[in-house]
Amino acid sequence: MDKTVVVQLGERSYDVRIGAGVLGELGRLAASADGARSAVVISDSNVAELYAARALQLLKDANLPARAITFPAGEPSKTLATYTDMLDQLLSATPPIDRQTVVVALGGGVTGDLAGFVAASALRGLRWLPCPTTLLAAVDASVGGKTGVDHPAGKNLIGAFHQPAGVLIDVDTLATLPEAELGNGLAECVKHGVIRDEGLLTFIESNAAGIAACDGDVMTELIARNVAIKAAVVSADERETGQRAHLNFGHTIGHALEVFFGYDNMPHGRAVSLGMVAACHMAVGRKLISRPDADRVISLLRSLHLPVTCSPLSVHEIWGIMQHDKKAAGGKVRMVLPTRLGAVEIFDDITDQAVADALAALTA
Amino acid sequence: MDKTVVVQLGERSYDVRIGAGVLGELGRLAASADGARSAVVISDSNVAELYAARALQLLKDANLPARAITFPAGEPSKTLATYTDMLDQLLSATPPIDRQTVVVALGGGVTGDLAGFVAASALRGLRWLPCPTTLLAAVDASVGGKTGVDHPAGKNLIGAFHQPAGVLIDVDTLATLPEAELGNGLAECVKHGVIRDEGLLTFIESNAAGIAACDGDVMTELIARNVAIKAAVVSADERETGQRAHLNFGHTIGHALEVFFGYDNMPHGRAVSLGMVAACHMAVGRKLISRPDADRVISLLRSLHLPVTCSPLSVHEIWGIMQHDKKAAGGKVRMVLPTRLGAVEIFDDITDQAVADALAALTA
Repeated sequence: MDKTVVVQLGERSYDVRIGAGVLGELGRLAASADGARSAVVISDSNVAELYAARALQLLKDANLPARAITFPAGEPSKTLATYTDMLDQLLSATPPIDRQTVVVALGGGVTGDLAGFVAASALRGLRWLPCPTTLLAAVDASVGGKTGVDHPAGKNLIGAFHQPAGVLIDVDTLATLPEAELGNGLAECVKHGVIRDEGLLTFIESNAAGIAACDGDVMTELIARNVAIKAAVVSADERETGQRAHLNFGHTIGHALEVFFGYDNMPHGRAVSLGMVAACHMAVGRKLISRPDADRVISLLRSLHLPVTCSPLSVHEIWGIMQHDKKAAGGKVRMVLPTRLGAVEIFDDITDQAVADALAALTA
Repeated sequence: MDKTVVVQLGERSYDVRIGAGVLGELGRLAASADGARSAVVISDSNVAELYAARALQLLKDANLPARAITFPAGEPSKTLATYTDMLDQLLSATPPIDRQTVVVALGGGVTGDLAGFVAASALRGLRWLPCPTTLLAAVDASVGGKTGVDHPAGKNLIGAFHQPAGVLIDVDTLATLPEAELGNGLAECVKHGVIRDEGLLTFIESNAAGIAACDGDVMTELIARNVAIKAAVVSADERETGQRAHLNFGHTIGHALEVFFGYDNMPHGRAVSLGMVAACHMAVGRKLISRPDADRVISLLRSLHLPVTCSPLSVHEIWGIMQHDKKAAGGKVRMVLPTRLGAVEIFDDITDQAVADALAALTA
């Protein structure tokens, strides 16, 4: 059964539609944007082959002339160079785009981040509709309005907050995902459970078979619960000055691991899994949660085929990368740690020794 | 005497300080930004030589470690390539920048547009303080939060709305401007008079000598009146969906002339002057204003050493560029025309023939 979650952001509120086959609503949704006259579908080379023709047809059927822009699949494309290339294509098109052009971001997280930043800055802001085709993008990037690209100095260091006009999550598109990609999204689901909703952890534990089989109803329910959690956090704190930082659980060390191992070798969800394991170790060390609570999270991650240990690393380098993180304040490292399963707090007294101890548990 | 104009934008409201010597307040202003810990001064190669050392010292005196980023002076620098280069410098700095870093944009319009877009997108948004050193930047770019870069397909096609934390306009810095540069700013002053305040036209007519001599009190009053007009328009319509479009008076044809003649050959203020002349001709043709009203505007522009005629051009090409303008809606050309001196309306029934007639008056 389809579900709709409303992201409450005042006059920038929007609906997230989730269900099997909801991509079929794309034309109607795009045409319903006030004054929409044309559309651009941005997708990577893999997704374009699967869905771009259908998306273009749906838009044309809704009387929106539409064209496609495609970029090479993969995280290495998430750069200012690809962004520049996409803007060149968008701005040189004939007939020209205008402020009534709607950008459709059809694909995974890289596509959403890139296409969203293009939409945020082309003509100083076009409306956009993310249509995530991966679980990670569905439960994470599709809500919150964060867009951007990576920089050699770190991930997502350049970008904009740009809220979408609506989101379509067709769970049928998830069925073609490789298991590893599904696991990336599940890491964020576990994160949402740890920071806000122990019941979500139980739901994942109880529906392992349905999730592994990408059952439509189970995935719709899973995504709707996760989107609702993220939407509540974002609504309360759109610009990431307060509790939105809770979403960084697992990400402070996770981001540093991505930089240390290289984005190619360390997909986002795997890095977050390791970051959550390290943060749970740290929370146990500080007596915030019990060892059995931490073990429950670690077992769940392992059952989802997510990594809970990694190859040897340099504590010194990772500490340096963490101090460089855009969320660090004046060089001070802040981390989000669980105080029980379903609740977290922000700690800004994190020492290099505490990080070293937590990282040691990953390579033990 | 110093003046302060408040730009009313709810929680994003900020002060514009205008006067002789107000640059001396830079350190105190930057340090007053909530949680500010460091600063970056962005300026072009010309302005850096004149003022960067002083700005860095003022920031250091206010306990803000500060570094400088400099780019080659001139409109050709206003590209994604320069933007990329500045982000590389900013993000690779040691110690690293963070969200408590404040960006100071010290210079003219190109500097404000570039540095503002860098501030808008670095770490998805840093606070910034424009310190305009040209009259054009002081009366135009310093209020409104528009930032961005040019693209081969047109001017300012890429960017963001990013409101500053405050603005410092030191009229002493204007005294070193060449007369042609002063004229560029005066074109925008005339624009503000035509769209909102006939009395401002009279002020400029009456203070020609003080303006030409860059008298401190006259310039402070001139800038304060212009900033107040622009602030009122922007406050009423931050995202340019309604009356903010009135500020485009002279700019629809002006932008097209910039593209047609090349940005190097056609500075912004000169293009706007010609655009206003063409718009006044069109308004007379439509019997919106009288011929003497139009002649008054044209005489004022001429007395300010701004162009009211130009070399031969291609009406066909300029019409094509106008249809490509990011403010065109669905290929339809909209123009702002005066209905009396001090008031304008938006017209969206502009034909190629009307544009041809108006352009003919420029080359007659």
